[in-house]
Amino acid sequence: MKSKGKLLLVLLFSKTFNMRLPFVMLLQVALYFAGSYASYAQETDSSVLRKFYTEALSHPVAYNRLDHLCNQIGGRLCGSPQVAKALDYGQKVMESMELDSIYFQPLMVKHWVRGEPASGKVKAKGFEDLDLHIVALGSSVGTGKAGITAKVVEVKSFEELKKLGRKKIEGKIVFFNRPADPAPIYTFDSYGGAADQRSQGAMQAARYGAVGVLVRSLTLARDDFPHTGIQHYADSVQKIPALAVSTNDADKISFRLKNDPELNLFMRTTCEELPETESYNLVGEIRGGEFPDEVIVFGGHIDSWDIGQGAHDDGAGVVQCLEILRLFRQLNIKPRHTLRCVLFMDEEYAQRGGAAYTERALQLGKKQKHIIGIEADRGGFTPSGFSIDASEQVIKKIQSWKSLFLPYGIWSFEKGGSGVDIRGLKQMGVPLVGLVVDSQRYFDYHHAASDTFDKVNCRELQLGSAGMTALVYLVDKYGL
Amino acid sequence: MKSKGKLLLVLLFSKTFNMRLPFVMLLQVALYFAGSYASYAQETDSSVLRKFYTEALSHPVAYNRLDHLCNQIGGRLCGSPQVAKALDYGQKVMESMELDSIYFQPLMVKHWVRGEPASGKVKAKGFEDLDLHIVALGSSVGTGKAGITAKVVEVKSFEELKKLGRKKIEGKIVFFNRPADPAPIYTFDSYGGAADQRSQGAMQAARYGAVGVLVRSLTLARDDFPHTGIQHYADSVQKIPALAVSTNDADKISFRLKNDPELNLFMRTTCEELPETESYNLVGEIRGGEFPDEVIVFGGHIDSWDIGQGAHDDGAGVVQCLEILRLFRQLNIKPRHTLRCVLFMDEEYAQRGGAAYTERALQLGKKQKHIIGIEADRGGFTPSGFSIDASEQVIKKIQSWKSLFLPYGIWSFEKGGSGVDIRGLKQMGVPLVGLVVDSQRYFDYHHAASDTFDKVNCRELQLGSAGMTALVYLVDKYGL
Repeated sequence: MKSKGKLLLVLLFSKTFNMRLPFVMLLQVALYFAGSYASYAQETDSSVLRKFYTEALSHPVAYNRLDHLCNQIGGRLCGSPQVAKALDYGQKVMESMELDSIYFQPLMVKHWVRGEPASGKVKAKGFEDLDLHIVALGSSVGTGKAGITAKVVEVKSFEELKKLGRKKIEGKIVFFNRPADPAPIYTFDSYGGAADQRSQGAMQAARYGAVGVLVRSLTLARDDFPHTGIQHYADSVQKIPALAVSTNDADKISFRLKNDPELNLFMRTTCEELPETESYNLVGEIRGGEFPDEVIVFGGHIDSWDIGQGAHDDGAGVVQCLEILRLFRQLNIKPRHTLRCVLFMDEEYAQRGGAAYTERALQLGKKQKHIIGIEADRGGFTPSGFSIDASEQVIKKIQSWKSLFLPYGIWSFEKGGSGVDIRGLKQMGVPLVGLVVDSQRYFDYHHAASDTFDKVNCRELQLGSAGMTALVYLVDKYGL
Repeated sequence: MKSKGKLLLVLLFSKTFNMRLPFVMLLQVALYFAGSYASYAQETDSSVLRKFYTEALSHPVAYNRLDHLCNQIGGRLCGSPQVAKALDYGQKVMESMELDSIYFQPLMVKHWVRGEPASGKVKAKGFEDLDLHIVALGSSVGTGKAGITAKVVEVKSFEELKKLGRKKIEGKIVFFNRPADPAPIYTFDSYGGAADQRSQGAMQAARYGAVGVLVRSLTLARDDFPHTGIQHYADSVQKIPALAVSTNDADKISFRLKNDPELNLFMRTTCEELPETESYNLVGEIRGGEFPDEVIVFGGHIDSWDIGQGAHDDGAGVVQCLEILRLFRQLNIKPRHTLRCVLFMDEEYAQRGGAAYTERALQLGKKQKHIIGIEADRGGFTPSGFSIDASEQVIKKIQSWKSLFLPYGIWSFEKGGSGVDIRGLKQMGVPLVGLVVDSQRYFDYHHAASDTFDKVNCRELQLGSAGMTALVYLVDKYGL
């Protein structure tokens, strides 16, 4: 009501508020005080979109919030004190926007801790000792305080592992060194093509008696940053330590192995899994004026890996989704449907936040309808489109808005996946959308110590906020 | 001939070279040795484009060349020893590709030198002294060794200057402080909207008796880097020193002026213009097999501002255009028309290189036809399209290839400007094209000390090389 009062005051004392005040302005005032949807009646969609973009590009609010999340809080592994601080901060931000409701969805998360910084060393004949840039993969067991030292078998695939067999692998460290393919244009395809080594390497190598695995970092960059990420064990096999090594070091180890196949690799990590602990999704809503029980949900994940700042993954998505609420508030647009921003917990480790959200949605059943789910989890880079996991009819409806988005460089509206946190809603038939951004730099930083605030460009980030806000606006106005 | 020999050798000794060698392979060999255009007959366009991209993304040749240009040679102001070194390097690169001809186009360039690093200081009541991040604008006269100290008038436009008039301006330093508008999506529009302050500020302020101008840096970033760039004097007015100040400092000066309108500004630069000197455009060609006198020309500018490394502006364009030649060579595609790569001199200062090239083209007249001119001078960022300065018919022809480019994220084929170095060809009716790239970060670095190699992403750069190569390939194959 505060801002309404201000507007009235401005109108009363402004020079235009006299006998010549045009009828249209009186109508505007009437509509304004009538409550909701005023803006829908008065402005063209292209004009509203332009306002979203101008506001987002003129005031770096999301960018400044990301600065806080990264530089004041830092990496936010689920179960950690940092992620609790991030939830507090998220709540404060939501409170500052005077939302209609803010609440937590409790859930249990695994609590893995990295322990002391991992270390590794290669001793090869004819070479100086090589100290490795190395990190434990998420969920890895520790090596024990003494670390492990063993000979190394380099492989590029699980087939190769099978061919070598137990005789050549037993007692050794398996070194997975298949580089990500640089040829795909969309780097998530490069990532996907090499990710089995990280996610299942330890499980597969343990079947043949390996004592540990070292995995080439999942990145197209050649540098000294090791990239962490989740890996999985199988109940049927021994849990062996799983670590990642930088691409530069992976090349060096491979070169040394060609000259000294009997070289020794030492690696050490004191990581371990602690008991599960309680955590939360954080939800903030602007209540829908016409259809309060029909929900447009959008979100990113508040947790991140611990070795960087989780700037692109997924601090960016978090502040962009908060920005959607701010842009609606700033332009004083009252949505017809409920706008729900979810800061999901635990996307990186066990995806419990997404699961908890879906479970809650299933419980509510027909009491609440999801119009659409939108996820931002591909980095804060220049947006180029939306990948849509929905019926052909819905895809066509969204594509019908393409001309509104083209002036902002959003041109691709293709069938495709949405995101890990909202994908569970698919079983309820909810149309799902992922924000697509320029992917060239994403895996340079992904899950590495280099995923820091300074790698995010203010305008690129803000364009993503505005693009998603535009989609939310159109879905809210026209439905799907 | 060396590579042909190698291929034959591989074929002779490969396992497939036996009685079961398929007929198609023999045909390929025959066509290969028959000379030219073999590839045009055998492969779909989409397959050839895929090869360009795979080669460009798999081998960071252009990126490594940019590393040399930036880190071994550095900023390359026309007339400087560095730009001479850069020409030598360009020549060596061209020679390594065994081009059909490599030659220089001589021209005279202005020779402005920056002298000692510029300095500036603000003394305002109630504030600590502020040391400024400041640079001379290109072509500025010096302040004299002692520098100048004067009171300051802050303005946002030339209209404001006019309103203030000589009485309020005479003897003072005019501080142009209109920020670039953040609202445009394409940042060149933001730049264009504020550039008059830099290019004409001194000329305009001198009319009212100002003793110098200080211009807010032309960038959307808020940081401590001053951005240089060319400025122009008018013959009719006094030449006064013109300097640029970082955006952070511009905000600080403005704040101080509000508190102390009588504050003193000191600034000092020993820049000066030396006599003109001889320089060159560097040209490398692959001769056309069918139409050697019909030319597809593409280029970037080898000169840059001196305070950074000229990485995005325009080392990127230079190495990308060299890469077009390499990709044709690497895929062994023999063009029908002559492919001409031009490393233009002096885009930044007086555009003499572009003028010399056009003059030469005009002299040759009908003896030589330009099929198309393509310029890369908007930074080494992810490409999104081509801006086309040509007839509707030509635009439609290029747009007809859109589906071939979409898999590579190149989606925008709109009427628009090409580039400063090739625009002179328009008078001959030559269709002109500029490579359009993501512009969000360009003016963060443009003409500043921060335009360095580390700001260029390998894949983003290489995508631009491949995209232009694809366009050259299609124009060569189908004409315009």
